Amino acid sequence: MSSTFGNRIIVSIFGESHGPAIGVNIDGLPAGLAVDMDALQAFLDRRAPGRNRYSTPRKESDRPTFLAGIRDGVTCGTPVTAVIMNDNTRSRDYEQMKDIPRPGHADYAAHIKYGGYEDYRGGGHFSGRLTAPLCIAGGIFIQALEAKGIRIQARILEIGGNREDPWGEIDRAREDQDSVGGIIECTVTGMPAGIGDPMFDGMENRIAAAVFAIPAVKGIEFGRGFNAARIRGSENNDAFCYKGEKVETVTNNHGGILGGVTSGMPVVFRVAFKPTPSIGKEQDSISYSKKSSVKMVVTGRHDPCIVPRAVPCVEAAAAIAIGDFII
Amino acid sequence: MSSTFGNRIIVSIFGESHGPAIGVNIDGLPAGLAVDMDALQAFLDRRAPGRNRYSTPRKESDRPTFLAGIRDGVTCGTPVTAVIMNDNTRSRDYEQMKDIPRPGHADYAAHIKYGGYEDYRGGGHFSGRLTAPLCIAGGIFIQALEAKGIRIQARILEIGGNREDPWGEIDRAREDQDSVGGIIECTVTGMPAGIGDPMFDGMENRIAAAVFAIPAVKGIEFGRGFNAARIRGSENNDAFCYKGEKVETVTNNHGGILGGVTSGMPVVFRVAFKPTPSIGKEQDSISYSKKSSVKMVVTGRHDPCIVPRAVPCVEAAAAIAIGDFII
Amino acid sequence: MSSTFGNRIIVSIFGESHGPAIGVNIDGLPAGLAVDMDALQAFLDRRAPGRNRYSTPRKESDRPTFLAGIRDGVTCGTPVTAVIMNDNTRSRDYEQMKDIPRPGHADYAAHIKYGGYEDYRGGGHFSGRLTAPLCIAGGIFIQALEAKGIRIQARILEIGGNREDPWGEIDRAREDQDSVGGIIECTVTGMPAGIGDPMFDGMENRIAAAVFAIPAVKGIEFGRGFNAARIRGSENNDAFCYKGEKVETVTNNHGGILGGVTSGMPVVFRVAFKPTPSIGKEQDSISYSKKSSVKMVVTGRHDPCIVPRAVPCVEAAAAIAIGDFII
Amino acid sequence: MSSTFGNRIIVSIFGESHGPAIGVNIDGLPAGLAVDMDALQAFLDRRAPGRNRYSTPRKESDRPTFLAGIRDGVTCGTPVTAVIMNDNTRSRDYEQMKDIPRPGHADYAAHIKYGGYEDYRGGGHFSGRLTAPLCIAGGIFIQALEAKGIRIQARILEIGGNREDPWGEIDRAREDQDSVGGIIECTVTGMPAGIGDPMFDGMENRIAAAVFAIPAVKGIEFGRGFNAARIRGSENNDAFCYKGEKVETVTNNHGGILGGVTSGMPVVFRVAFKPTPSIGKEQDSISYSKKSSVKMVVTGRHDPCIVPRAVPCVEAAAAIAIGDFII
Repeated sequence: MSSTFGNRIIVSIFGESHGPAIGVNIDGLPAGLAVDMDALQAFLDRRAPGRNRYSTPRKESDRPTFLAGIRDGVTCGTPVTAVIMNDNTRSRDYEQMKDIPRPGHADYAAHIKYGGYEDYRGGGHFSGRLTAPLCIAGGIFIQALEAKGIRIQARILEIGGNREDPWGEIDRAREDQDSVGGIIECTVTGMPAGIGDPMFDGMENRIAAAVFAIPAVKGIEFGRGFNAARIRGSENNDAFCYKGEKVETVTNNHGGILGGVTSGMPVVFRVAFKPTPSIGKEQDSISYSKKSSVKMVVTGRHDPCIVPRAVPCVEAAAAIAIGDFII
Repeated sequence: MSSTFGNRIIVSIFGESHGPAIGVNIDGLPAGLAVDMDALQAFLDRRAPGRNRYSTPRKESDRPTFLAGIRDGVTCGTPVTAVIMNDNTRSRDYEQMKDIPRPGHADYAAHIKYGGYEDYRGGGHFSGRLTAPLCIAGGIFIQALEAKGIRIQARILEIGGNREDPWGEIDRAREDQDSVGGIIECTVTGMPAGIGDPMFDGMENRIAAAVFAIPAVKGIEFGRGFNAARIRGSENNDAFCYKGEKVETVTNNHGGILGGVTSGMPVVFRVAFKPTPSIGKEQDSISYSKKSSVKMVVTGRHDPCIVPRAVPCVEAAAAIAIGDFII
Repeated sequence: MSSTFGNRIIVSIFGESHGPAIGVNIDGLPAGLAVDMDALQAFLDRRAPGRNRYSTPRKESDRPTFLAGIRDGVTCGTPVTAVIMNDNTRSRDYEQMKDIPRPGHADYAAHIKYGGYEDYRGGGHFSGRLTAPLCIAGGIFIQALEAKGIRIQARILEIGGNREDPWGEIDRAREDQDSVGGIIECTVTGMPAGIGDPMFDGMENRIAAAVFAIPAVKGIEFGRGFNAARIRGSENNDAFCYKGEKVETVTNNHGGILGGVTSGMPVVFRVAFKPTPSIGKEQDSISYSKKSSVKMVVTGRHDPCIVPRAVPCVEAAAAIAIGDFII
Repeated sequence: MSSTFGNRIIVSIFGESHGPAIGVNIDGLPAGLAVDMDALQAFLDRRAPGRNRYSTPRKESDRPTFLAGIRDGVTCGTPVTAVIMNDNTRSRDYEQMKDIPRPGHADYAAHIKYGGYEDYRGGGHFSGRLTAPLCIAGGIFIQALEAKGIRIQARILEIGGNREDPWGEIDRAREDQDSVGGIIECTVTGMPAGIGDPMFDGMENRIAAAVFAIPAVKGIEFGRGFNAARIRGSENNDAFCYKGEKVETVTNNHGGILGGVTSGMPVVFRVAFKPTPSIGKEQDSISYSKKSSVKMVVTGRHDPCIVPRAVPCVEAAAAIAIGDFII
């Protein structure tokens, strides 16, 4: 439950933004899987902050240490555990969070759920920082899937509703001490047909269940998605045809999934990210102690848009959902 | 896996469209739960076909028989099992399906997945008919949730992109021997704050995992959803305030869920349904035996739009996802 | 949970002794599995009562009806559901059970667990009758395992402590209006090496978890079992050797399992059954209503020893545990 | 699966005997649970080696470091992760294990299961050393259970078949460069009635599933256990009676569990441990490379009997099984 995902390969993510460490335990990976640590680090670097002018200058050392399950870069078949030690955590930035929940964040919901025992510092377990261990697991799954000819590639489709100049939206938002969200599209190629279980464990169910683990995700659609609801069946149905011996569909409105099972066409889905809730502007919130409304400003350094850093996270989420079926 | 849902209360759906029966097994319901059988039947009738001119004239007798777990209308605490015997199944309608997959249906994907052993008649286990047992489970969960003051209500938001005159779209589609999809909005009120687990078992993850079990669903969004990706953080963040002793948010762009955990505000989500893949028009498909393209027409009687009948299905899916946390 | 077993193939058992029906849902069986219905019935008949003078004359019709997942005797890949309708249930035999728990039965524990809502008639869901659906599932698993060259065979080792004349013990117990228990030994041959997961999902853990689902089981041991605790390591260790290309052990004190993983040697385990709690003698119990001690006699017809009928149940339990790993 | 246990609170154990670290992740512990670190360490010390002349002189520093889920000694509600860094690992002791499996150990089974990729050093993930993280989890569960008035206490019942002078057996075994096993009895008091689910998740099933995770366990029995199979029902049935308002049984042959559900009487079970497979004597094994039989001697330092150190492990296993139901 909760921070654990998978029916065959169980991914368990742990840690708090300002705790001693964050990490992941992966139980069920096959033995003999060679993990390219440089490729994994390169993947993690895509998520790490401070890489470009669009992301916070914080220099998090997202360098995983493997504690178990891997010997000489090859999986042993037993649980694989990796951690990232937390450093440069400026907890004082977050002292006010003990009493004042940040609008748009999980602070208040967690406060009620955990009865005040939650680690409120930097969002604790709900922090975007926890996507780092997600990417450790995802990066390993991606390597295993690529060995099977399956490629997962996500890209920014739009930011702040702008498809032509998405980066400009981020600049404008920063200037306004505000933030913007965006939409990421993910395409999975080389997917064999017949993968996915009916009903509750369909490929769409599983990818959705994994993707909503990424903070700020508010929607997901497959293939033509919400627009499919606006056209006729004759337009939306994808005709079958033979490409030599191989069965394909002429179009791919279904996004590679029919009845929860892959059709062999590319799996295509889009994910909606809300704007970063942390903004420089003053906001209205409450004080638990005062039991009254208060004005507050979120301190600390934050990305005006997390979408660029979320791209590898979407690939990671897709990888653990798909890999659970076929690794 | 597959047709089984739930971490605490396990809902297992079984049956094929043209098999002897369809049904559901629910393992984990508390003892002493009084099930109002009339209310349950009324709920099932909302999904049943042949009720209005918009749905197929087939008269399916969606009357569940309880085989286990309920005595004198009250749950015993042990697994609850209910079945609906299939009758009036005109299998001959589906003979061609053995060789020719219907565009937009799971036929081909299932054919590959099950190596030709799938029950192809009427879509077998992938048929929309299987939403009947989903609604049996959902109807029971809804009653249990209402006893806790939680109300789940879904409604048609638009059909074929039309919000003003959705029903007209269905008429036009039928005249054209075509079909249309639509969008259903679901609102859950009376939801306590603090429900849902972080990451993979967040309320959004779970509702999405349940909703994608309904055939033809291609997308889901919570709160402001995809539109949240197009506005600024200052606009999307919901300010906290006190309503007397109770904490609320001034707006509800977050759709009642923050970090996967409920905030106490109404849970709001929208589901996109593609048009019914079964249409009267001739379509392009393939013949497995001929290994070539063929023209085909889907025989049998079908709804030009399943959205009206899908409304209780969305409520049922929401109920089993939410109920799994709090019943 | 509860009446559901399996990590890959999920077996869910439902029903009450005196409810409308008992049955099983199996989610995850591969498609294309041919089920020999005659062989399955023959297996169920080994468990059924009234077959010999040692078991109750009740004539239960343990004839399963398959409602889903099987077409023309072959699995479709979707959930397989079978039910046995209950008939000849003499509920009046059990009226006193509403107020007076039977010593040695689950009556009282269930009464507390379900707050009085349990189906007390004949033990309800806790009745030995529920081993019939276990055997339906087990019988199917056994056929699938035999197709892989794996044979599961259980036998009576002793009854009432008597290995020479076990049946005589049953006669004596009946004459005394008493009952006896016994020990069943199960051997699994043709087992490949390397099956089973470390720690909590070892083959021993899984077989034990399945076997304790059979009423009256109070102990299980593997290989040399409890006697291994009484000898030296030099005696208990099984030396490895080559039988041609194949690695074997000279002895099999480990019972085919090392570290939870199969060694390729026969899996051997023994199961202890307590005496049937239902006896003709007068016993001391309590009355919930009177809140006082009462004398009581268990009415109805019961086996003086359930061990003979439990033999196929042990095979069934072993089959669903082993099959979950390798079918 | 595999190294993961629990339906509500998920305990995942990771690490290899000679890897960088061993540890545990616990997902699902309630927030606000105060963990007494001194009491936890005292519990771990009971398992640690080198504490008395009966155990190996190795000084393992079994001091857990908590990486997540605990702040100021109190659980946050999010996953709790603790690790023990491995030191003083003399890998050279184990070089021969790469080619020669140790009789009685999991070496060969793991070799087949993991295709040679297993971490063979010191048994890797199958090492008794992995009971340290089991005890970290168990120690925390025990504290949570004690707060509810539930006490778990295990003790050595016999060693090498000797109940009068069990320690003497260990001395004799050491002198002979041999080893002995034994039986541990565990009693759980303060257990409320009505805990445990029917069939596969009965209290017996769950405790057995947890206990078999401890290396060298070959059998488990509840209450009268195997001896119940040798007496009459009239002797084995436990009469119910009122102790004031409370319902009890006059005797406790059922070991506190009926139909998988607790009766409110003490839960009593016994666990059989085989002798330590590592002995000083020369043994017969095989060489994978030579594909022939070889003589071998297990190097390194080992306990002639692991039963004394296994006592807290049995308590830990019982605690995670019971705690999963009621913490």
